[in-house]
Formats: sequence, structure tokens, C-alpha cells
Amino acid sequence: MRIFVKLLLLFSLFPLAFSNENSSSYLIPRPLIKNIDDNVNLHCTSWRFAAETNNLAPWKTIPAECADYVKDYLMGEGYVVDVERVSEEANVYASSFESNADGKDIWIFDIDETLLSNLPYYMEHGCGLEVFNHSKFDKWVEKGIAPAIAPSLKLYQKVMDLGYKVILLTGRRENHRVITVENLRNAGFHNWDKLILRSLDDRNKTATMYKSEKREEMVKEGYRIKGNSGDQWSDLLGSAMSERSFKLPNPMYYIP
Amino acid sequence: MRIFVKLLLLFSLFPLAFSNENSSSYLIPRPLIKNIDDNVNLHCTSWRFAAETNNLAPWKTIPAECADYVKDYLMGEGYVVDVERVSEEANVYASSFESNADGKDIWIFDIDETLLSNLPYYMEHGCGLEVFNHSKFDKWVEKGIAPAIAPSLKLYQKVMDLGYKVILLTGRRENHRVITVENLRNAGFHNWDKLILRSLDDRNKTATMYKSEKREEMVKEGYRIKGNSGDQWSDLLGSAMSERSFKLPNPMYYIP
Repeated sequence: MRIFVKLLLLFSLFPLAFSNENSSSYLIPRPLIKNIDDNVNLHCTSWRFAAETNNLAPWKTIPAECADYVKDYLMGEGYVVDVERVSEEANVYASSFESNADGKDIWIFDIDETLLSNLPYYMEHGCGLEVFNHSKFDKWVEKGIAPAIAPSLKLYQKVMDLGYKVILLTGRRENHRVITVENLRNAGFHNWDKLILRSLDDRNKTATMYKSEKREEMVKEGYRIKGNSGDQWSDLLGSAMSERSFKLPNPMYYIP
Repeated sequence: MRIFVKLLLLFSLFPLAFSNENSSSYLIPRPLIKNIDDNVNLHCTSWRFAAETNNLAPWKTIPAECADYVKDYLMGEGYVVDVERVSEEANVYASSFESNADGKDIWIFDIDETLLSNLPYYMEHGCGLEVFNHSKFDKWVEKGIAPAIAPSLKLYQKVMDLGYKVILLTGRRENHRVITVENLRNAGFHNWDKLILRSLDDRNKTATMYKSEKREEMVKEGYRIKGNSGDQWSDLLGSAMSERSFKLPNPMYYIP
């Protein structure tokens, strides 16, 4: 009976909640500080869910009120636990196949926020609160010191051990090939089959378009794309999609 | 400087964290009760993120330790706020197009946990903790009293006002057509263009396959699938995918 009353309450709250732009305005009043904290947490968790499931319209910066929330998530245990889980699930899936006798099974990895972490850069630039600055970010890339995301390195080694060919497909440009290779090697990544960077021809394409075209080429060459790991939906959606895609968390930026 | 130390700590924690099956075992000790609560919350939020982004292997029940977490999410503000946001974002997208002069733009909606809520049923059956029971659930469906998810009803009316044709594409079976129509009407849904239910021929197909085939038929008939709303990735992925998909939250069950 109590459940029925709660449900009545839930459904009667829906229309009211939807009619307000500030969706937290209908919450039952509670002591002020707790209330503000709870509301921000609720609002920003909801925002993160929407971002990570690709429900949001294209966005350039994180909501200002979520700046601390995003930083806490990235620097606390939340991000680590999420990244671990993605790698573990991908590992279970990758291990579920029989041998790949013809060597045609491939696994695609994106690089930034998938294999390498740019958190040291983003921590100095508001973790998504500042509009992306190409020239500043290029300077960071050119240092070649982005650390490995350890669970991704573990998955990388695992799929290689299982006999998958590894393709790195990144939005980084060709002029960063040398430093990218150096950075990847220093971070522990070796023996990939192919590293595909954006050429001048790909300059004006969305990431979805550019990456879809590259995947189509792989399929035409007879490869089977068994797995694809990326932190952006533009790494994963489009044409010639992988049999399974693994979405790493990234609450800092959106690439169309 | 403090940031640098925190980052060092973060990256040195990664391998340790990944090496433990219980991913929370490396957390810094804190007072016991708070610690357990925090860990469960962290663990279950991470599980929910993985479920909602389609990173998990197929699953039949929610993790036992997340039973209260899932119930609290569904009965508290979390679910309401998330569902509202999906509808709002879909609304923004749907409104972004010019007129649809030839009447060929369509919006697809799934039914269960998208337009209609089965929460009254799931609240009595562990919210995902019990293995799905077809005959019990059928009895609930046959009552025809599932309430509307109000933000979805709002979106439904909006896309209809904007001139989209609305197609309802559900995993419910043909023998539930009459009660489904009655339930939808009583909940406020009217004037859809087509209601597609699973025929006997579709019985052994995965939802992804069945729904993809139905979408392919729509495309062959000259329709443009502009939007697709569903709580399962099997509503959204496959072939003839929509230009934009909107993933409603559902931490209770998984349909392949």
C-alpha cells in the first residue's frame, strides 16, 4: 500500500517537474546547505548520464554549476572505477570468441581519453569549463607526456594476446604522428598494426564521418571489427560499426 | 603543485585498482558505515553508468548489492530528472528542423519504460532483482493500467504537433494489441500512425534484429527516421538507425 502511495506521488510529480526549467524546484524543502549540495549532485549526475548516453545536443563546455562535480568525479574514485569496469567488460567480451585463425579480427582504439589521458592538461584548464583551445592543446600534445590509462593498457595487452590486430584510429592530425608514437611507446603501448591519423583531406569532416570512412576501408579489406573502444560516441557510431562498442567515460568534452 | 601530486596519486592507483576484483578495496579507510554507504553508492553508480552506456555483457538481474540503490533511484528524484532531461533534449532536437512538407519524417517510440511505465509491477518484483517472469509480467500487461511517463507524453505530443508521423515499435506481442491500444489511450497517447507489435514470425529474433527489420521497411517505404526514443539499446542500435537516438534510463532489465 505504501508503494502505491509513493508511485502516485511519483507520477503526479512528473508533469510539474517537466514544466519547470529548473527541474529541482519541486523538491521537498530540506535544510539549506544539504539541499543545495543534493540538488547540484542530482542535477550534475543527470547531466553526466545524458552526456554519456549521447542524449545531449552538441555541447562546448560543461555546465558551470557542475565544475566541482566533474573535477571531483575525475580526481576521486568515480572515474577510475568507471574506466576499470569498461575495460573489464571489454575483456570478458574479447575473450568470449574462439580462435581467429585468419588474423582478420581487429580491435579499434581511439587514443585521447581512451588509451592516453589528457587529465594533466584539462586539470589546468577547468576540466571542460573552458572552451577548447586548439593551440594550447596542441602544445600539450607536443610535449608527448600524456600518461596511459592503466585499465586501457591492460585491455590493449589482453586483446593483443588474444590475437586481435589492433588499429589506433585517432582524431589527432598527421603532423603529430611522430610525437604520438613516442608518447604511446613511452606509456607502454607497442605493436599496434596500424595508426591512423587525420590527413589534410579529412580536415573538414566530423569525427563520425572520418572514422566511419576509415572503418569502411577496414571492412572492404576483409577485416572483422570485433571491438571498438572510445570515449566519444563519434568514435563508435556511424557506418561499419563494430560488433560491440565500449564507451569510456568523458564528462569534459564533446566531439561531433 | 597540489594538482600534480593528486594526478600522480590517480595514475598510480589505476593499476592497483584494476588488479582487484573488488574495485573498491583500495579506497582510503574512513568511518565504517559511511565507507560502506559510499562504496555501495560508487559501485552501483558505476554499474548504472555501464548499463546505460551499453558496456555491460548481457545481464539478467541487477547486482544484489545494488537493490536498494536502484529502488532509491527509481522512487527518488533521480529517475524523474533523468527522464525529463531526455525528453527535453529530444524536444530541442525535434524542433530544430524546418517543415516536413512531404510528411515523410517519422519519430519512433518504444512502449515499455519509454511511453508507459511498468514501475508499479517492478516495485512488487524487486526492480530487476528477480529474474524476468514472462507469465507474471503478461498478467500485469493484461491489466492495461500502466501509467504514462509524463515527460514522454509531452514529447509525444510535441513531435506530433511538429508534424512528425509517430510509429510505435514494441517488443510486446500481437496478442496484446487490443489491451495495449486501450492502455495507451487511457494514458493519453492518441493518433499514432502505426503500432507495430511482434508477430509469430518475429518470435525468435532478438529485439535488435526485429526492430532493425521494421526500421528497414520504413526506410524502404521512403520514410526518414529522424528520431527514436527507447530505454533499451536494442531499440536504437542495428540497421536503419535513426538520425538521433534518445536513450531513456532503465536500470532494471536488459533486452538483447
